[in-house]
Amino acid sequence: MLKKVLIANRGEIAVRIIRACKEMNVKTVAVYSQADREALHVQMADEAYCIGPTASKDSYLNFSNIISVARLTDCDGIHPGYGFLAENSSFAELCEQVDITFIGPTSSAISKMGTKDVARETMRKAGVPVVPGSQGIVDGVEDALDIAEGIGYPVIIKATAGGGGKGIRVARSKEELIKGIQVTQKEAAAAFGNPGVYLEKFIEDFRHVEIQVLADNYGNAIHLGERDCSIQRRMQKLVEEAPSPALTPDIRHAMGYAAVKAAQAVDYRGAGTVEFIFDVGEQKFYFMEMNTRIQVEHPVTEMITGIDLIQQQLKVASGEKLAFAQEDIEFRGWAIECRINAENPEKNFMPSAGTIDMYLPPGGFGVRVDSAVYPGYTIPPYYDSMVAKLITYADTREEAVAKMKRALDEFVVEGVFTTIPFHARLMDHEVFKSGDFNTKFLEKYNVLNP
Amino acid sequence: MLKKVLIANRGEIAVRIIRACKEMNVKTVAVYSQADREALHVQMADEAYCIGPTASKDSYLNFSNIISVARLTDCDGIHPGYGFLAENSSFAELCEQVDITFIGPTSSAISKMGTKDVARETMRKAGVPVVPGSQGIVDGVEDALDIAEGIGYPVIIKATAGGGGKGIRVARSKEELIKGIQVTQKEAAAAFGNPGVYLEKFIEDFRHVEIQVLADNYGNAIHLGERDCSIQRRMQKLVEEAPSPALTPDIRHAMGYAAVKAAQAVDYRGAGTVEFIFDVGEQKFYFMEMNTRIQVEHPVTEMITGIDLIQQQLKVASGEKLAFAQEDIEFRGWAIECRINAENPEKNFMPSAGTIDMYLPPGGFGVRVDSAVYPGYTIPPYYDSMVAKLITYADTREEAVAKMKRALDEFVVEGVFTTIPFHARLMDHEVFKSGDFNTKFLEKYNVLNP
Repeated sequence: MLKKVLIANRGEIAVRIIRACKEMNVKTVAVYSQADREALHVQMADEAYCIGPTASKDSYLNFSNIISVARLTDCDGIHPGYGFLAENSSFAELCEQVDITFIGPTSSAISKMGTKDVARETMRKAGVPVVPGSQGIVDGVEDALDIAEGIGYPVIIKATAGGGGKGIRVARSKEELIKGIQVTQKEAAAAFGNPGVYLEKFIEDFRHVEIQVLADNYGNAIHLGERDCSIQRRMQKLVEEAPSPALTPDIRHAMGYAAVKAAQAVDYRGAGTVEFIFDVGEQKFYFMEMNTRIQVEHPVTEMITGIDLIQQQLKVASGEKLAFAQEDIEFRGWAIECRINAENPEKNFMPSAGTIDMYLPPGGFGVRVDSAVYPGYTIPPYYDSMVAKLITYADTREEAVAKMKRALDEFVVEGVFTTIPFHARLMDHEVFKSGDFNTKFLEKYNVLNP
Repeated sequence: MLKKVLIANRGEIAVRIIRACKEMNVKTVAVYSQADREALHVQMADEAYCIGPTASKDSYLNFSNIISVARLTDCDGIHPGYGFLAENSSFAELCEQVDITFIGPTSSAISKMGTKDVARETMRKAGVPVVPGSQGIVDGVEDALDIAEGIGYPVIIKATAGGGGKGIRVARSKEELIKGIQVTQKEAAAAFGNPGVYLEKFIEDFRHVEIQVLADNYGNAIHLGERDCSIQRRMQKLVEEAPSPALTPDIRHAMGYAAVKAAQAVDYRGAGTVEFIFDVGEQKFYFMEMNTRIQVEHPVTEMITGIDLIQQQLKVASGEKLAFAQEDIEFRGWAIECRINAENPEKNFMPSAGTIDMYLPPGGFGVRVDSAVYPGYTIPPYYDSMVAKLITYADTREEAVAKMKRALDEFVVEGVFTTIPFHARLMDHEVFKSGDFNTKFLEKYNVLNP
């Protein structure tokens, strides 16, 4: 087992990883930017070192400072969390070179899945359903027009180096496609250093359903069921749940199988997520992308399977074999997660940094809080606005929703605006409660002012 | 379903009941003493009313004020929690008379089980194993000496109206018995208004194992497995766990069956607990007493069964049938509860009232906190010293203990002393970790200064 792990991250995920390490008797080293001196992860780790100024590029993205701390403190592993360096194949490669275990997949797997058109082609070849579209990068506007003609409008233009809702654009006509290709290429070159774009048929109404996979270094790969992340605002997930209210047992089985094939196609190891577009009307699913890291929403899977995903990451990275096979995985109950962001939902979700005067998280049966804040903590304005994840678990979806409403109502965060009131209204929304919605839910319904 | 419930209690159990009611869409009315104006249960309930001065007898034990508030606010149910009026058959009878549902068993069941010698005789007749001893109240010193002669010393003298570790005394010889009978009778007359005492063989080394039962109004009664409460200080439970590390499947089955018989013998309804003395050496168990209420340690059972016991109490009280049979109950994983008391473990567990300056409960996967405190809350010195229950849940006992240690380490309560450091040391104790101990553990080992 790894003996000492550096956590190259901040916020709730750094706290989450420290917790898993402590439970497994693994020593922890936190790193932090100058803006994060008072952060909870700094207080909770066995050791903590400042790795640079506030800007992420100078601290949480600073390869050499992070590697230096890891070497100086004799860490044998680095956990990247999510965001920052989590899907940076160069960083993973650097760890491999200096003989520190990167707690995640190989740099090669990250790289294959990080280049979206390569991922798409890899999946197509592995027999995983992909949305009809171009084979790899489009050659130029003429090529794009030909492809769009073949698959039919609307189409979606995606930067191969993009992700997280960035570098994508919909075209509903020839004219929009011509313009869209050029703009997206230019933007992608500037933002990601790679102008390559590819085309897909644009599926307008779909649910975002993803499969959690887990693989070891010995060829064993299983899935831990799906998460439904259809409640999104501007392609950012706000609420996730497991299982999905939309999946039949047959689709669940087929999607799980496809996800395992996807992981195997890149010799995946550790925890990863294969995201799918699920077309409810057609009852078909298509590969969207694979996230080669732990995800924000991993707790809902933990709740319904009883499996600690961070501990599993540590075990796989330590060279352990998976302790269970696919048939050992049991799903029980229903879990929902609300991302509590320091944002003002009444003001278009404007970020709301500042000092938390009063903080009292909810408790009781079936309530889990993953957070990195405390009374008196000042949320810096420089990073992600998520301050807590509130997860509820019960036998049924209806009970998990009722529990979430109860937990949101008792969650006290004073001093900054949060999305708690938004979520509380959402839990009362009849369409949300019905479970019958897609990723356009928040465009269609004004939850706060119906 | 009940529409509006008055919670005749305070502290974490009042909060616990309010949470269950909210999740079931039942309105709540809190009551409070003058010392509890700032209490969390007062803030969380839909309505709250002061029912009297600080002294419990004038507020939380004040029948007429509580019934008046219930009637004035149109409550159709009263939940007594634990302690205070929970096992007061006169109060239950009064509720029956004014047609308000007492959320608990009938006054007759409370009364039968509350009188210890009657309970013992009822159990003996029902075929539930009881510790060898007197049949009912002893007639006097001569009678006691005869009985002790028959069962052998040491014996234990118990006041029939006692409970919770009060009104009991061990006698190891004739002389001690003669003196003990007289002193216990005198004390019991003063403390409980009933001088009756009975005798039992004193079993020195035993584990405290209890069975959670659940029954409806239609003759259905099941058990939800056992809890092991062997970590006690002066007969007060400090740590509870489920399952018990000491029970074989056969003993678990037999004990569960005996507990159901015990419940049926008094036409029990709702949630109750049958406590047993478990003699590990002999692999025998004996009825100790039945608690005709929800217990402090109920969460560990909830964790391993997935069943919300307070919700079940509300359902049974509303006239619903149990939704599951014995064979539907599945046990999964391991749960441990530490009672966090505002006491100084270094100073002989002296109560430590005062203002909590900083409060940050632990969180994450498998961690549950049931508490009624918040940052800035002043713990009044007049009531129970328990300020929080920390419960952890994992696949195995070893993992649940490691998680408890991690959670205790991150639990911040500043401004008052608490038992957190004591529990943290206990979780590291080799004998505790082995699972092989009995109720004398804390007499035998000095956890804080080994």
